[in-house]
Amino acid sequence: MPPATEELIALTQAQLGEINEALDSGTFQQVRRLLNGLQPVEIAHLLESSPPPSRRILWTLIDPELEGEVLQELSEDVQLQFLRGMNTEKVVEITEGMDTDDLADVLQRLPDAVIQEVLAAMDAQDRQRVEQVLSYDEDTAGGLMDTDTITVRPRVTLDVVFRYLRRHDELPGSTDSLIVVSGKGEYVGLLPLSKLLTSSPNSTVREVMSTGLEAIPATMRDTEVASLFERHDWISAPVVDDDGIVVGRITIDDVVDVIREDADHSLMSMAGLDEEEDTFAPIHRTAPRRAIWLGINLLTAILASSVINIFQGTIDKVVALAVLMPIVASMGGVAGSQTLTVVIRGMALGQIGRSNINWLVSREFFVGLINGMLWALTMALVAGWWFEDPIISFIIAAAMVINLLTASVAGALLPITLRSIKIDPALAGSVALTTITDVVGFFAFLGLATYFYA
Amino acid sequence: MPPATEELIALTQAQLGEINEALDSGTFQQVRRLLNGLQPVEIAHLLESSPPPSRRILWTLIDPELEGEVLQELSEDVQLQFLRGMNTEKVVEITEGMDTDDLADVLQRLPDAVIQEVLAAMDAQDRQRVEQVLSYDEDTAGGLMDTDTITVRPRVTLDVVFRYLRRHDELPGSTDSLIVVSGKGEYVGLLPLSKLLTSSPNSTVREVMSTGLEAIPATMRDTEVASLFERHDWISAPVVDDDGIVVGRITIDDVVDVIREDADHSLMSMAGLDEEEDTFAPIHRTAPRRAIWLGINLLTAILASSVINIFQGTIDKVVALAVLMPIVASMGGVAGSQTLTVVIRGMALGQIGRSNINWLVSREFFVGLINGMLWALTMALVAGWWFEDPIISFIIAAAMVINLLTASVAGALLPITLRSIKIDPALAGSVALTTITDVVGFFAFLGLATYFYA
Repeated sequence: MPPATEELIALTQAQLGEINEALDSGTFQQVRRLLNGLQPVEIAHLLESSPPPSRRILWTLIDPELEGEVLQELSEDVQLQFLRGMNTEKVVEITEGMDTDDLADVLQRLPDAVIQEVLAAMDAQDRQRVEQVLSYDEDTAGGLMDTDTITVRPRVTLDVVFRYLRRHDELPGSTDSLIVVSGKGEYVGLLPLSKLLTSSPNSTVREVMSTGLEAIPATMRDTEVASLFERHDWISAPVVDDDGIVVGRITIDDVVDVIREDADHSLMSMAGLDEEEDTFAPIHRTAPRRAIWLGINLLTAILASSVINIFQGTIDKVVALAVLMPIVASMGGVAGSQTLTVVIRGMALGQIGRSNINWLVSREFFVGLINGMLWALTMALVAGWWFEDPIISFIIAAAMVINLLTASVAGALLPITLRSIKIDPALAGSVALTTITDVVGFFAFLGLATYFYA
Repeated sequence: MPPATEELIALTQAQLGEINEALDSGTFQQVRRLLNGLQPVEIAHLLESSPPPSRRILWTLIDPELEGEVLQELSEDVQLQFLRGMNTEKVVEITEGMDTDDLADVLQRLPDAVIQEVLAAMDAQDRQRVEQVLSYDEDTAGGLMDTDTITVRPRVTLDVVFRYLRRHDELPGSTDSLIVVSGKGEYVGLLPLSKLLTSSPNSTVREVMSTGLEAIPATMRDTEVASLFERHDWISAPVVDDDGIVVGRITIDDVVDVIREDADHSLMSMAGLDEEEDTFAPIHRTAPRRAIWLGINLLTAILASSVINIFQGTIDKVVALAVLMPIVASMGGVAGSQTLTVVIRGMALGQIGRSNINWLVSREFFVGLINGMLWALTMALVAGWWFEDPIISFIIAAAMVINLLTASVAGALLPITLRSIKIDPALAGSVALTTITDVVGFFAFLGLATYFYA
């Protein structure tokens, strides 16, 4: 019998359709049955794929026992929407039994008073663990870590380790190694399960443990943690505090979320959006967020227009200039955004720095020059045929070369410059670049025209 | 002693600086020592972060024993650059000892004759494994899988499994479960190492194995595999052929690469770039690739200009129109690209389909309307103050509302429409959208102006 996993994916849209139909016809019992037959992660995906009205109804139909698990699978933005609607007792109830890292994530979005009540409702050991995770910034290794580690001492034999493990009902998720610690709890090494299973039970932990892997400092940025996991194909890694004491471990499933968000960050920021943006956010949340970005762009568009304004007299003389001028600006914008995207991606991958930026800028200069000349020549022929005026052909070609060169070099230098003054290149880069290519494009084209036609 | 992992990341730029200096001063011996003291994945990262001239020199300085490992860590584009420079014997030599999935990846980029020679040089078992991986498309589960699985029978006791594992020197990387198969090799279930370690050695595999996880069909698309891993926090999963026979397993490290590429795809495609693009590709490769995209954009820019051309007479009368018209087009472009980005990301996450697209389009309509009116009013005031002409204020406000509405609805509908006709929305979406917002923007603004000033 062929396996059925492939259906899992296609299911979502079909399920959504079915659930929406059932919702419309008011047969909530049926929806409840459909919904609670799914895994929490699938319910979370369904909620994220639903517009707010169905989302609210769906939430009320989820089995209360599943609510906590569903909540921790939701993206930040959607999670917050549901948390806002809960009173403190509900939050206490729903967060029972969550992993410490997920619980800390949820708590961080709540008011201080609620956090205190949730913590007060926990037993001492769990509270201490959550407080430890909460003491680190959400975007650091400490904020990402789980505190449920299994540690062993270097002196014991593997046989003892086997007996120790059998006393557990199960191991914490994604456990691929046990952490070897000293009597004080300091990190000593790792005992991979695969080593444990392939070595003689009479060996000691010290004899078979791996010491090559350094522990991750709790204060390391989560994107750096992700990059280490990616480069070294880790599944889990120990986290230590400033004194080298093991405080938790990070697992690949949390790192995958960081990688996904990190990769989404460039895409979303370049359109002035947040990477946590809820696809189905309601109008009253979407409109204000986008308005700010549009406002900033209106300012830069007015700036570009004021350049055109300087040359009103010239346009009045040769109206064909008004027809052709958007082409110069547009081509500069496209060329610049290609360079900008390559450089921003390269920076996110940690490939670009002082040692190679000069080479990159000079490559972009020549690529801009070659493509500028190619399409300037093409455009000169088109303009010549269109307006039967060799001067306008020459002017647009020259302006295009100038603008594509500027765009390419600016696209390479802007992200580096912005980063050095602590501004996110993905967010500010595209606005800054469009402003440059519009202003330079209009200035070059209309300036040259004024010189030749005046 | 605080651990040193954080330095690992910062090292790259410092190392690059040091290595470049050493290269410039011609002290290759020093570079060789620096380079070969690193792990293969770090050497690969250094190569990817180097412009072509240093890249070529660095490659020659790598210890021949490390070459294969470094090669399989390189991104597709860079890998190909080095492979092109090798003769068949070198390829045979360098690919010895590679994982089957990595080897298959490398082979797929080579000419058929070379593939045959590499296969001929392998022993029968390895050849059969590689041929199996090669028989699946690179972008499927089969192309992604490793063939080094450890399988056990359901009837045996865990004690037998322990003894069987001890006969191995090590387990294949990222092994978190053994695959339970029938006598015919059919997939039966999984035996997680954590279950193995926490259960009684006298239990049978059948008693403790997990049967909840379905195996992945070898023909499933890699992005769907990634989505399953992401949703279920898997570390490895078995792969089966059409008859349910286990043919390999997929591990999270390969899935992370798919997730990274998948997330990069939207970002890079929206600028007409390939997600595998080498940041330091030489001019003669960069220029032609980008030229095509610029050419397509030139065509659409000319199309937009031909709209302006229709209204030359009106601009000739009121030259202020030429000053303001780029604002209308630009604001439409920005509003549209925000919607487009949200929808393309939502589609990549599998959130958007027929069941919710209507809600999304109507939200975008209202967000476009609200923000259109807000900034249209602002712009009307600015234009009124600038040109002291209430008609021009009204015209630009009306044109902005029309264009922002069109942009928002087009931004939501375009990706769905493109996908339904099998065109990649991330690649074609932004060009198509800009064409629409430019044409509609110019048409609305200049059309209204012609009506009022004629």
